[in-house]
Amino acid sequence: MAETDQALPPSDQLAAMNLTDTVEKHAFSDRVLIRSIVGRPDGGAGLAGQRVRAGGWVKTGREQGKGTFAFLELNDGSCPANLQVIVDAGLAVLSKLVATGTCVVVDGILKVPPEGTRQKIELRVEKVVSVGEVDPAKYPIPKTKLTLEFLRDHLHLRARTNTIAAIARIRNALAFATHSFFQEHNFLYVHTPILTTSDCEGAGEMFQVTTLISESEKLEKELIKNPPPSEVDIEAARQVVSERGEAVKQLKAAKASKSEITASVAELNKAKENLSKLEERSKLKPGIPKKDGKIDYTQDFFARQAFLTVSGQLQVETYACAVSNVYTFGPTFRAEHSHTSRHLAEFWMVEPEIAFADLQDDMNCAEAYVKYMCNWLLDKCLDDMLFMAKSYDKGCIDRLRMVASVPFVRISYTEAVELLEEAVRGGKKFENEVKWGIDLASEHERYLTEVKFQKPLIVYNYPKGIKAFYMRLNDDLKTVAAMDVLVPKVGELIGGSQREERYEVIRERILEVGLPLEPYEWYLDLRRYGTVKHCGFGLGFERMILFATGIENIRDVIPFPRYPGRADL
Amino acid sequence: MAETDQALPPSDQLAAMNLTDTVEKHAFSDRVLIRSIVGRPDGGAGLAGQRVRAGGWVKTGREQGKGTFAFLELNDGSCPANLQVIVDAGLAVLSKLVATGTCVVVDGILKVPPEGTRQKIELRVEKVVSVGEVDPAKYPIPKTKLTLEFLRDHLHLRARTNTIAAIARIRNALAFATHSFFQEHNFLYVHTPILTTSDCEGAGEMFQVTTLISESEKLEKELIKNPPPSEVDIEAARQVVSERGEAVKQLKAAKASKSEITASVAELNKAKENLSKLEERSKLKPGIPKKDGKIDYTQDFFARQAFLTVSGQLQVETYACAVSNVYTFGPTFRAEHSHTSRHLAEFWMVEPEIAFADLQDDMNCAEAYVKYMCNWLLDKCLDDMLFMAKSYDKGCIDRLRMVASVPFVRISYTEAVELLEEAVRGGKKFENEVKWGIDLASEHERYLTEVKFQKPLIVYNYPKGIKAFYMRLNDDLKTVAAMDVLVPKVGELIGGSQREERYEVIRERILEVGLPLEPYEWYLDLRRYGTVKHCGFGLGFERMILFATGIENIRDVIPFPRYPGRADL
Repeated sequence: MAETDQALPPSDQLAAMNLTDTVEKHAFSDRVLIRSIVGRPDGGAGLAGQRVRAGGWVKTGREQGKGTFAFLELNDGSCPANLQVIVDAGLAVLSKLVATGTCVVVDGILKVPPEGTRQKIELRVEKVVSVGEVDPAKYPIPKTKLTLEFLRDHLHLRARTNTIAAIARIRNALAFATHSFFQEHNFLYVHTPILTTSDCEGAGEMFQVTTLISESEKLEKELIKNPPPSEVDIEAARQVVSERGEAVKQLKAAKASKSEITASVAELNKAKENLSKLEERSKLKPGIPKKDGKIDYTQDFFARQAFLTVSGQLQVETYACAVSNVYTFGPTFRAEHSHTSRHLAEFWMVEPEIAFADLQDDMNCAEAYVKYMCNWLLDKCLDDMLFMAKSYDKGCIDRLRMVASVPFVRISYTEAVELLEEAVRGGKKFENEVKWGIDLASEHERYLTEVKFQKPLIVYNYPKGIKAFYMRLNDDLKTVAAMDVLVPKVGELIGGSQREERYEVIRERILEVGLPLEPYEWYLDLRRYGTVKHCGFGLGFERMILFATGIENIRDVIPFPRYPGRADL
Repeated sequence: MAETDQALPPSDQLAAMNLTDTVEKHAFSDRVLIRSIVGRPDGGAGLAGQRVRAGGWVKTGREQGKGTFAFLELNDGSCPANLQVIVDAGLAVLSKLVATGTCVVVDGILKVPPEGTRQKIELRVEKVVSVGEVDPAKYPIPKTKLTLEFLRDHLHLRARTNTIAAIARIRNALAFATHSFFQEHNFLYVHTPILTTSDCEGAGEMFQVTTLISESEKLEKELIKNPPPSEVDIEAARQVVSERGEAVKQLKAAKASKSEITASVAELNKAKENLSKLEERSKLKPGIPKKDGKIDYTQDFFARQAFLTVSGQLQVETYACAVSNVYTFGPTFRAEHSHTSRHLAEFWMVEPEIAFADLQDDMNCAEAYVKYMCNWLLDKCLDDMLFMAKSYDKGCIDRLRMVASVPFVRISYTEAVELLEEAVRGGKKFENEVKWGIDLASEHERYLTEVKFQKPLIVYNYPKGIKAFYMRLNDDLKTVAAMDVLVPKVGELIGGSQREERYEVIRERILEVGLPLEPYEWYLDLRRYGTVKHCGFGLGFERMILFATGIENIRDVIPFPRYPGRADL
């Protein structure tokens, strides 16, 4: 197989290009992508007469014509559409091809099917190259209609379903859109650490990362196999040392030969070494090492307590305060026992940070980024979005169009509270209290964006009491330069702020919220030395996918969901 | 500040475009990027006369003309070059501007400097907008020449140095090149899990992730504040229950009123509830929960032992066996006590996985990917590469050019061993034994790529005994379809293989290497149902940066290095 640099164009670009009548080859495989056939604007009709090798998994298959041939709907994950494949009985045992989930690779010739059929092209097989069989009686996901909840118990196979594959393509598109947006705008992608010894906001349940338990278990096993010396053993070894010492002394006193003395001293040293080894081993105790009644973290891998990050923001600020425009896009963790459809223990966050920029710039960036992602999906994933609209949320495409086109409403927190109070006076019932100084609940946010404005909305200038210490104190001394982007369907999508760049002010704020200064000295250094106005925000990546697709449960939009009690695979 | 969608073009594109004589505005800030001035092919000369706002950190500054003006070399991280800025004494206290690390934002007019100077353009300041001062006596990194080792103790400030900023831009470019390459070739980016309950290769030291320690510490504190009930307390509560039960019985026997009985039953229930609470609390024990002498992981967050991933390969295979072409790019972890310049506890890996593809395809993909990255750096980061060549490794640009252009040599492991044995016979000394069946050591790999071929090299078909169980067994039954890509400077850059897709064979291999089947049942399912020929590889992302830049220590090419004893920030 010769190497080739030919890339297949994304299906959306096929519309713009001149359609050729040869199928583009896959760069690193001898088969073609099914999308390069059925994803064409002509549905593949222009390729009639071409010989191709195709591979994929059977979505549905059936024997026809009294078993003389079989129809297979073949999908390789490159697009939602299947390739219709027709295999004659002489080429294979048809019953082994038709089960859902069977993998087949076939060589054949593309033909225009008889008029009146849905397909624009079909593949008449000339050779069955290989088959990965399925026993339908045992296959865990034999049917095409399975609930998302059921599929969560079969993470390793669920990407073979139409829904999870479509979500995978949409997730992929949004990830690349994210990188493209920030790269186009001259942001540097910075990998902030996953393992951290800083707790970003002094809050939040964190996962601890340690080698102490495994080390202690290793030691325990070792001590069972090879028990530590008893006091008697040690006393005996001490005795040997003292005897050997005596022997050396006597030889010296007796002016024995040099070689005799050397040999005797060597014996003594061996005995001493043995004793010190025994003494060392006698100190070994099973269990996690402790000091003064507390776990001795100086013996942990990083010589201190370490956690999984809850946000890369504080760390990425060190780069913003050096190279201006940066973003991080990586996994973050919360050890919260939340069993809701909106929380995960492991989720992905996008966190840009912009130097020489204020809250207005922050809002501009957030709005431009969200619009960019919406346009990207409309441009590049319309086939998958049509599938989501048909199967899950008929309004999802209109929602993307709306968010991509209308300017986001911007109101202050104080205005937001007034509007909510007005709604309450008008008879609207909320479960949570509406009052200046209390954070907006999800129901308030969704009322504002879905009912009141029916548009994306940015709420800014929140009371300082409900926001983090690093947010810039406004001149009113009551609010901070924070902002949340709210969108229909999910409510809060983005939270951000201008950061407090004034050393004295942020120092005061850390103390005010009851945090110790010492762990934040490095963060304070950014304000001590060459401080700069800067801002940033965080977007929960899975929330963006929920917003785009209309899927209800966050566990279905990440390939391997982690939540209390579950971390399959 | 109005929103704008204008993106600044990367400097390399400026050459190709018509140079305009207006400076492009930053999309989300009121200043311009310094790169948009000095990064132009004309060095900014064409912009003379333009009024701009610039911001950055002072690299070097000096007062001149007996304190009547100051020269500042300003850098904002957008490119290696500085903007020369001239400030008159009337505009600011000059002594507060000149210290290295000072942040200044200035408005001014771009002028062509007097002939004979190095700069093509300089900024004559009209207004000093803001200053973030630095006390040079306290600033931890006041000098421009500091060792990389010293900088590792100042992670939060080191991105302000030329070297670390250049590495950040190169790292960013390689990350985006990675996404661009795989997206162009129709691979889907899949986020494999960081938290895992699978151990990829049954080997490797893993970090454990747990909430048991923090939960037990929380409980301990709680029990000190609020001690568990004593046996006496519980007995007393039991007594109350029995008395109340008696009371109910008596009322019923006495045919008391319904309301009297109801009230009495309520009292009884309250007593019962109190007793059960006390009994529950009496079971609470400080310390990590145990069962049968072992830690009871059913009480941990995920109800079982969880670890940080060492590779996303096995998980990403579930997507390859569903949507064909996928890749993962994320952090991976090893809890090894390695103190070398080549190991980190947290590092990033790129792992593509290709269905319907074999070892040849795998090698083709690996070679194309590495070449693509080399070309990307030559195209988009030449200024940073020139800096690295000047400061660290004069051969680094030639190395990129060579790897980008020459076909990779491909030899089997058996041939590699023969060549090494030949070298030994010719007098070459290796520390490690050369013998068929033993893994190649780093010195062997570097000899082959740096001395013998002086080219990138792919070694394939390794003895099965030294490779993982999931690699496809060759027909000789002695070797597996594995391959390593070796490059000058770092040796092994990529390791990959065709995966064993035959159910019976892989099952046998798991048992042969002494692993239990149960944890791999999901992995075996991929072979049981609709199995497909597939392959993949892993590239250590930091190794690629070492290869590109010539930097010697891996701790300097990741923003926040984690290694034994250290996880700063």
